[in-house]
Amino acid sequence: MKLRIDLNCDMGESFGLWKMGNDVAILDHVTSANIACGFHAGDPLTMQGVVKAAFDKGVKVGAHPGFQDLAGFGRRSMQVTPAEAYAMVVYQVGALSGFARALGGRLNHVKAHGALYNMAAKDQRLADALARAVHDVDPDLVFFGLAGSEMILAAKRLGLRHASEVFGDRSYQDDGSLSPRNLPGAMIEDADVAAAQVKRMVADGLVRSMQGKDVPVEADTLCIHGDQPGALVFVKRIRAELARAGVEVQAPA
Amino acid sequence: MKLRIDLNCDMGESFGLWKMGNDVAILDHVTSANIACGFHAGDPLTMQGVVKAAFDKGVKVGAHPGFQDLAGFGRRSMQVTPAEAYAMVVYQVGALSGFARALGGRLNHVKAHGALYNMAAKDQRLADALARAVHDVDPDLVFFGLAGSEMILAAKRLGLRHASEVFGDRSYQDDGSLSPRNLPGAMIEDADVAAAQVKRMVADGLVRSMQGKDVPVEADTLCIHGDQPGALVFVKRIRAELARAGVEVQAPA
Amino acid sequence: MKLRIDLNCDMGESFGLWKMGNDVAILDHVTSANIACGFHAGDPLTMQGVVKAAFDKGVKVGAHPGFQDLAGFGRRSMQVTPAEAYAMVVYQVGALSGFARALGGRLNHVKAHGALYNMAAKDQRLADALARAVHDVDPDLVFFGLAGSEMILAAKRLGLRHASEVFGDRSYQDDGSLSPRNLPGAMIEDADVAAAQVKRMVADGLVRSMQGKDVPVEADTLCIHGDQPGALVFVKRIRAELARAGVEVQAPA
Amino acid sequence: MKLRIDLNCDMGESFGLWKMGNDVAILDHVTSANIACGFHAGDPLTMQGVVKAAFDKGVKVGAHPGFQDLAGFGRRSMQVTPAEAYAMVVYQVGALSGFARALGGRLNHVKAHGALYNMAAKDQRLADALARAVHDVDPDLVFFGLAGSEMILAAKRLGLRHASEVFGDRSYQDDGSLSPRNLPGAMIEDADVAAAQVKRMVADGLVRSMQGKDVPVEADTLCIHGDQPGALVFVKRIRAELARAGVEVQAPA
Repeated sequence: MKLRIDLNCDMGESFGLWKMGNDVAILDHVTSANIACGFHAGDPLTMQGVVKAAFDKGVKVGAHPGFQDLAGFGRRSMQVTPAEAYAMVVYQVGALSGFARALGGRLNHVKAHGALYNMAAKDQRLADALARAVHDVDPDLVFFGLAGSEMILAAKRLGLRHASEVFGDRSYQDDGSLSPRNLPGAMIEDADVAAAQVKRMVADGLVRSMQGKDVPVEADTLCIHGDQPGALVFVKRIRAELARAGVEVQAPA
Repeated sequence: MKLRIDLNCDMGESFGLWKMGNDVAILDHVTSANIACGFHAGDPLTMQGVVKAAFDKGVKVGAHPGFQDLAGFGRRSMQVTPAEAYAMVVYQVGALSGFARALGGRLNHVKAHGALYNMAAKDQRLADALARAVHDVDPDLVFFGLAGSEMILAAKRLGLRHASEVFGDRSYQDDGSLSPRNLPGAMIEDADVAAAQVKRMVADGLVRSMQGKDVPVEADTLCIHGDQPGALVFVKRIRAELARAGVEVQAPA
Repeated sequence: MKLRIDLNCDMGESFGLWKMGNDVAILDHVTSANIACGFHAGDPLTMQGVVKAAFDKGVKVGAHPGFQDLAGFGRRSMQVTPAEAYAMVVYQVGALSGFARALGGRLNHVKAHGALYNMAAKDQRLADALARAVHDVDPDLVFFGLAGSEMILAAKRLGLRHASEVFGDRSYQDDGSLSPRNLPGAMIEDADVAAAQVKRMVADGLVRSMQGKDVPVEADTLCIHGDQPGALVFVKRIRAELARAGVEVQAPA
Repeated sequence: MKLRIDLNCDMGESFGLWKMGNDVAILDHVTSANIACGFHAGDPLTMQGVVKAAFDKGVKVGAHPGFQDLAGFGRRSMQVTPAEAYAMVVYQVGALSGFARALGGRLNHVKAHGALYNMAAKDQRLADALARAVHDVDPDLVFFGLAGSEMILAAKRLGLRHASEVFGDRSYQDDGSLSPRNLPGAMIEDADVAAAQVKRMVADGLVRSMQGKDVPVEADTLCIHGDQPGALVFVKRIRAELARAGVEVQAPA
C-alpha cells in the first residue's frame, strides 16, 4: 500500500487591512488549506480571496472555525457550552461553504482553531459537539483532529470521516500528546530532525517521544505553520524528504 | 388564476441574552421567515433556534443579511463597495444555510436587511452585487426586494427568481416608492386601511399613493413587522381580509 | 458607630436596540450603579444615558468592566493574561469616566463583571491586575470585590480603597464563599430570609452558612440583581428591614 | 514671531496579533501621536504600549476616535446621528485617557479618524457634535481638524482650542479643500515638492492649488502618513526643510 500524508496549513488569517501570513506562496506546497471563518480572523473578502486562490491551485479547502475573539486571535480559552460550540462551528462552516459554492467548489474538511482545537482535544463533550456540527452540516466532510485526541474518538463514534493530525515541528510526550510549549525541547527547529520525525510517523506509525520512547501515532495530515519565518524552507524540506521516502502527499479523498 | 401572496417577517433578531421580537407566535401566521445572520443581529444559537422553529411550523426560511453593525442594528448606511456587499451576503447566506442543512432543510430566499436593503433598492451596482451573491451561493434561492426597485431589476437581469415586496403599513408615493418615514401619513396604523391596501395590491396590482394616484405595483410578498406592539393583531387582520378576498397565502415555490 | 451599607446594582446592560433591565426604576432604591462599559454590554449612548440618570438621582456611578464577549454577556471565562486584564480594565474605566466627566461628575467605584469578577475572586494575579488598573486610572476609586476574596486582598496590598460585597439572595458556604448556583439552596428567594441575612451581615458581621455555621463576613456593599423579576419588591423589602435595624444605606464615601 | 508647526501621525493602528505601521521609529520624528482607540483599530494592550512609547519620547498624545468598523478600518462612511457621534467620541477619548492617566500623563489633543474625519469636515452638525464631545470630556484638549473645515468652525464657535491640519503629500483645490484622491495629481509623491508646499503653508499661509491659484490656509499641524513606505524619509526631509526655513516643530501647547 502506498504511503500517503496530507499537508495542511492555516490560511486566510488576515482581517480587513491587516495582513497575516503568506498564503499565496504556501499554497504551492500544501494540499489542504484551513481557512479562517471570521470569528478569530478572516473577513468575508479575505475568505473569498483565499478560497479562490486555493481552488485555482488545486488545494483542498477546509473551514477553520475558532472562538469569536479577534483581539485574542481565538487563542484564549473560553468556557463555552457544547451547544454553543456546536452552533459556532455550524455557523462558520456554513459561512465558508458559501464562498466555496459561489466559486464552484466545495469544502473538503474542517479543522478547529487555536483554543477551540486545544480544548476539544481533551474535552469529550466539546469534541462530540464539534464532530456532530461537522457531520450535520455535511456528512462528507473530513474532520481534522489531533492524533489520538478526543476529537478523533468523537469522529469515530459518529462514523465521521477524519484525519489524525501530527506535527513535525513539535516534540511528543510518552502519552502521545504534544510537549507543552513552555518545555525546553517542545519546538523542533531543525528542519532535518522535523523531516525525519514526519517520515517515521508516516512510514512506521511511530514517534520518538521527548523522553526517548517510541509511541504509536496515526499520521494522516501534517500541520504546516505558514506564519513562521522559515515556513517555505521547512515545507520544501519536508516534501523532499517525503518524496525520497516514497510517501505521496495528498489531501484526504 | 389563483391570487396568492407570501407573508414574510424578520426574525431571529435577538442576540445573546438580549431578546427581541416574538418569533414563536409570529411563526404561526407567516409563510416566510427572514432570519438575521449575525452581522446586525442573531448569534449562532439564536439562528439555530429560529431555523428549527420555522421548519417545525412549515414556514420557509430565508437569510436576512445586513451590515456588520450590532450597535446600529444594521440600520445605519455604510459606504461599502459592491465587492464588499457581495462578500458579506455570501458569508451570511452561507452561515444561515449551515443551520438549514444541519436541521435537514434548506433556505428558500434571501432578503437584505435595513440600510443594506434601502441602499440596494436605489443603487444599481449594489443591487447587482446582492443578486449575484444570492445567485452564486444557490441559483434556486428567491431574492426578495422592494417592488419596482433596483433589486428586482437586478434579479431580472440575472435570471434570478425574485419576489416583489410590498407593505401594508406604509403609504406609497406617486413613483411607487415608500413614503419617507418622516412624512405625516407615511405609516398606516389602521389595520383596516392596511388590509384594504394589501388586498388591492394583490388583487388589482395597484396602490393608491399618498397623493391620491393609482400606482401599479407587483405584490409577491408582504412585509410583516413582527416587532411592533400590534403585530399579531395586524397579521391576523390581514390574513382574514386576504381569505375573504380569496387570496391564498403561500411562500414563493 | 452608625451601621451602614451600600446597595449596588448592575446597570446600562442594554446594547443598541436591545433593552435589558429597568434602570430608571431601580435607581430610586440603590446608592451605587455599576455601569457596563461596552465590552459585555452597553454601547456609548446607553452608557451616557445611564450615567446621566444616576447623577440626576444622586446615585454614585461606577464602572463595570467585563470580558469583550457580547454574545456571552461576559459570563464565559476567558483565559486572559494579567496584562490583558489590566489593559481591558483601564480601557473600560477610562471610557466610562469620559461620560462622567462630560456630565460634570466623576466615577466613585469599579466592580468587575461576570466571569471576570468570578475569576479574579479566586486568582491572585488577576485580582492584582484589576486592583492595579483601578488604582492607576484613579487612586481615589473604590474597588468592589467579593467579601473575603482575592480582590479584597489585592486592594489591601495596594492600599486601594475597597468595598466588600455581600449577597442577600445567595447562600454561603462554611469558608465564606458563595454556594455554587447548581446546589439546591444556593439561591435565596424568600425576601424575608434575604433581608434577615443582610441585616445580620451588616449588624453582626456574620452569615449563617448553608451548613449551619456562623461565618464572619465583611459587608460594605450589597449586590442587588436588578434584572430579576422581583427586583423592586426585593430592594424595597431590604431597605425597609435595614431602616428598622438602624442601618444607614449609603455609597462608600 | 517664531514660525511653528506640529507634526502629527496616526499610531496604534495594530489590533491583537495584527501589526500595522512603524510607530516606534516614527515617534522619533513627530510631535503629536494620534492613537487609535479600539473602534477602527487598536486593542487595549496596543493602546497602552503606544501611549507609553509616546510619553517616553516626549511626544504629545491624542485620541484618534473612529467608526466602530474593524473590517473597514473606519474608512467607510456610516450615517450616524450627531448624538451617536458625540457618544462614540466621548467613549473613545475617555478610554485612551485612561491609559494616559495610568501612565502618569494626559491627553493633549483629539483628531477624528478616517470617514468620521472626512464627514465632519463637511457636515456642520457632525462637526459640532465632535467638538462638543472633546470639550465636554476635557475643555483643555486641542481639537485637530482639516484647515478651513466645519471642524475648525465648530471649535471656534465653542471656544475650543484647535489646530488646523494641512497636508504635504496632498494637493489642494481652489476652495482650499484637498484634491479628491481619484484625481491625477492629488497625491504629491516628490518629497521636495511636498516640503516646499509645507514650508510655504507655514511661512506664508498660502498653498498653490492644483489649478495654480494661491489659496490662504492656516497651518498649525501637518499630517504625516506613517504607514507609507517612504514615511521616515519623508518626515526627515520635511523636518530638514522646516529647520532651514527657521520653522520650529512643536505640538500645540
